[in-house]
Amino acid sequence: MNKSRLEAFSDGVLAIIITIMVLELKIPHGDDWTVFQRLGPKFVSYIISFIYVAIYWNNHHHMIQTVKHVTGSILWANTHLLFWLSLVPFVTAWAGENHFSELPMAAYSFVLLMAAIAYFLLSKVIVNVHGKDSVLSTAIGSDWKGILSIAGYALAVAFAFILKEISLFIIVAIAVAWLIPDRRIERKLKEKE
Amino acid sequence: MNKSRLEAFSDGVLAIIITIMVLELKIPHGDDWTVFQRLGPKFVSYIISFIYVAIYWNNHHHMIQTVKHVTGSILWANTHLLFWLSLVPFVTAWAGENHFSELPMAAYSFVLLMAAIAYFLLSKVIVNVHGKDSVLSTAIGSDWKGILSIAGYALAVAFAFILKEISLFIIVAIAVAWLIPDRRIERKLKEKE
Amino acid sequence: MNKSRLEAFSDGVLAIIITIMVLELKIPHGDDWTVFQRLGPKFVSYIISFIYVAIYWNNHHHMIQTVKHVTGSILWANTHLLFWLSLVPFVTAWAGENHFSELPMAAYSFVLLMAAIAYFLLSKVIVNVHGKDSVLSTAIGSDWKGILSIAGYALAVAFAFILKEISLFIIVAIAVAWLIPDRRIERKLKEKE
Amino acid sequence: MNKSRLEAFSDGVLAIIITIMVLELKIPHGDDWTVFQRLGPKFVSYIISFIYVAIYWNNHHHMIQTVKHVTGSILWANTHLLFWLSLVPFVTAWAGENHFSELPMAAYSFVLLMAAIAYFLLSKVIVNVHGKDSVLSTAIGSDWKGILSIAGYALAVAFAFILKEISLFIIVAIAVAWLIPDRRIERKLKEKE
Repeated sequence: MNKSRLEAFSDGVLAIIITIMVLELKIPHGDDWTVFQRLGPKFVSYIISFIYVAIYWNNHHHMIQTVKHVTGSILWANTHLLFWLSLVPFVTAWAGENHFSELPMAAYSFVLLMAAIAYFLLSKVIVNVHGKDSVLSTAIGSDWKGILSIAGYALAVAFAFILKEISLFIIVAIAVAWLIPDRRIERKLKEKE
Repeated sequence: MNKSRLEAFSDGVLAIIITIMVLELKIPHGDDWTVFQRLGPKFVSYIISFIYVAIYWNNHHHMIQTVKHVTGSILWANTHLLFWLSLVPFVTAWAGENHFSELPMAAYSFVLLMAAIAYFLLSKVIVNVHGKDSVLSTAIGSDWKGILSIAGYALAVAFAFILKEISLFIIVAIAVAWLIPDRRIERKLKEKE
Repeated sequence: MNKSRLEAFSDGVLAIIITIMVLELKIPHGDDWTVFQRLGPKFVSYIISFIYVAIYWNNHHHMIQTVKHVTGSILWANTHLLFWLSLVPFVTAWAGENHFSELPMAAYSFVLLMAAIAYFLLSKVIVNVHGKDSVLSTAIGSDWKGILSIAGYALAVAFAFILKEISLFIIVAIAVAWLIPDRRIERKLKEKE
Repeated sequence: MNKSRLEAFSDGVLAIIITIMVLELKIPHGDDWTVFQRLGPKFVSYIISFIYVAIYWNNHHHMIQTVKHVTGSILWANTHLLFWLSLVPFVTAWAGENHFSELPMAAYSFVLLMAAIAYFLLSKVIVNVHGKDSVLSTAIGSDWKGILSIAGYALAVAFAFILKEISLFIIVAIAVAWLIPDRRIERKLKEKE
C-alpha cells in the first residue's frame, strides 16, 4: 500500500466533505432581510463545521507524514475516521435547520465525538505499527489533548439535553484549541532530520 | 496512457462516490427520536455502501499496482467498473428509503453483482495484457474469491424476491470476506522485488 | 503555469462531473417495476453522458500529453471546454426527465456541439503555441474527425425538432467513433521517443 | 507542512466548487422555450461565477508557486480564502433565482468582496513569511490591482441597493481585468531562474 495514495484519497474525501456542505444551505425563498434571520443558525453550523473539517485535514496531514509503512490496520482505521467525518454535512444541516435543538445538537456532538475517537484510534494504530520510539509516539506522548477532546465531546453530548449553549461552547472551545497545527509532530520530524 | 492519471481519475471518482452518498441522507423534518427510527434503514444502507466503496478503492489500488502498460482495453474495463460503482449511491438511497423491500433490494444486489463482474473482467483484461506469468496472474490464480463473490451476488438478487434477509446477509458476508486487503497481490509484488 | 496542475484540475472537474450526474437520478417514489419504466429515459441519458465524459477525459489526457508550454491561451481554451462539459449533468437530467422531447434533445445536442467546438479550439490553440511540426499538429493533421463530429452535432441539434430519433442516433454514433482512444497521438508520441 | 498537499487540497476544493454549482441549476419543469426565459438569470450568474472560480484557481496557483515555507498562518489564510469561495455556489444560485434583486445582488457582491480581501490577506501573509525581497513581494509591489478590486466590490455591494445594474457591471469589469493571468509573478519567477 502506497502512502501517497492514502493521502490523495483522504485529501479528496475531505475536500469534498468541506465543499458539499454548501449544498445543504438550501437556497432560501424570498430576497428580503428575514432570510438571514432564518439562515442564521445554518450559517453558524456551516462555519463551525468548515473549521472542523479544515482542522482535521491539517492534523491528519501531519499525522500521516509520520507514517512509513501503510498496513491494513492503518488503512481501515483511516477509513473509519473518514466515515464519521462524512456524516458531518448531515448533522451540520440537521442542527442548523433545527436551531441547535436538543437531539440534533446531541447528534452533532456525537459525530464529533466519534470522529475524535476514530482519530485517537488511528494514532494508536500508527504508533503500534511504528513502535514506541517512532516520531508520532514521542511527539504525542500520552496524547492528553486527544483524550481531553474526547471527554469534552462526551460532555457536549450530555449537555445537549440539559443546556445546549454549553454544548456549543465546548465544541467551539475545542475547535479553537486545535486551530493551531500540532507543532509537536513538526518539531519531532525536524529533530529526526 | 499514463498509469498515474488512471489511478488519479479512479481515486477521484471513488472519493466522490463515497462522499456524495451522504447527500442522499435527506435532512429529516423534526428533531425527536422518531427521526432515527425513520432514518434507520437509510443509515444501514449507507454504512454497507461506504464499506463497499472503501473495499473497492483498496483492492482496485492493489490491482492497478500490478499494471505496467495501460492499454485502451484496460482503460475501458476500468471505466466500466466505475460506471457500476457510480450507481451505488442511487441504489443505496432507494433501498434505504424503502426499508430494503423486494425490488430495491434486488437492484442493490444487482449493482453489486455488475460491479463484481466488471472487477473480474478488469482483472482478466490486465492479465491478458501482461501475460500468464505476470504478478496479477500468479497472485489471483483462478480467482475463486472473485467468482464466488459473483455467485453470491447473483444469489442475493434472486433471494431479494424470496427472503430478503438472506440477500442482506450474503451482501454483508461478502463485504466481511473482502475487508482484508488482498494479500496475494502484496506478497507476489514483494517476491518480485 | 505548471502542466501537471492543469491536468490535475481538469481531471478533478471531469471526475466530479461524471460522478455528480448520479445525483440527478432522483430516488423514485415507490418500489415496484413501474419505477424502471419511469426511470428508463433517465438511465439512457445517464449512460450516454457517462460514456461521453469518459471519452473526453481520455482524449483530453492524450492531447495534454503533447503540451510542453502552458500559456494563458491554452489555459482559457481549456477552461472554456470544462465550462461546456460542466453543463452535461444539467442537459442530461433535463433530456432524461422529458423523454428526449424536442427542446431538451436540442439542448443536449447543443451542449455536445459546443464542447466539441471547444475541444477543437483547444487543439488549435495548442498547435499554434507549439508549431506546425509539433506532435499534436502532425498527429491530428486536418482533424477531419473533430470537424465531422462538430457537423454531426449541428445536425443533431436541427433534427431534434424534426425527428429526434435521428439526433439520438447521431450522438450515439459519434460516441462509438470516439470510444477508441486517439491512436494518432500515441503513435506520434512514440515516434518522437 | 508540505506545499504540494496545500496545492492539491486547494485544487480539489476549487474543482468541486466550480462543478457543483451546476447542481443548483435545478432541472426545470416543462420542455418549452419559456424554460430559457426562466433560467436566463440563473445561467448568467452561473457563467460569471464559473469564470470567477477559474480566475481564482489560476491566480491562486501563481501565488502559491512563490511559496517556499508553508506556515500555520499561510495555511489558515488559505483556508479563509477557500471559505469565502465555498459560498460562491450559494450566492450564485440565490442571485440567479431572484433575478439579481437587491439583497441577493448585495450578498453576491459581498462574498466576492470577502474573497478578494481574503486573497489580499493571503498575499500579505506569504510576503511576511518570505520577506520584502521575495518573488511575490517584488512581483505584486503595492498590489494596486488587488486593492482596486476590493474597492470595486465594496462599491458593488453599495450599488446593489441603488442601481443593481452598476453592481453587475463592476463585477463583470473586474472579472475581465483579472482574466489575464498575473504575468507579474511569472516574469519575476523567470528572472530568478
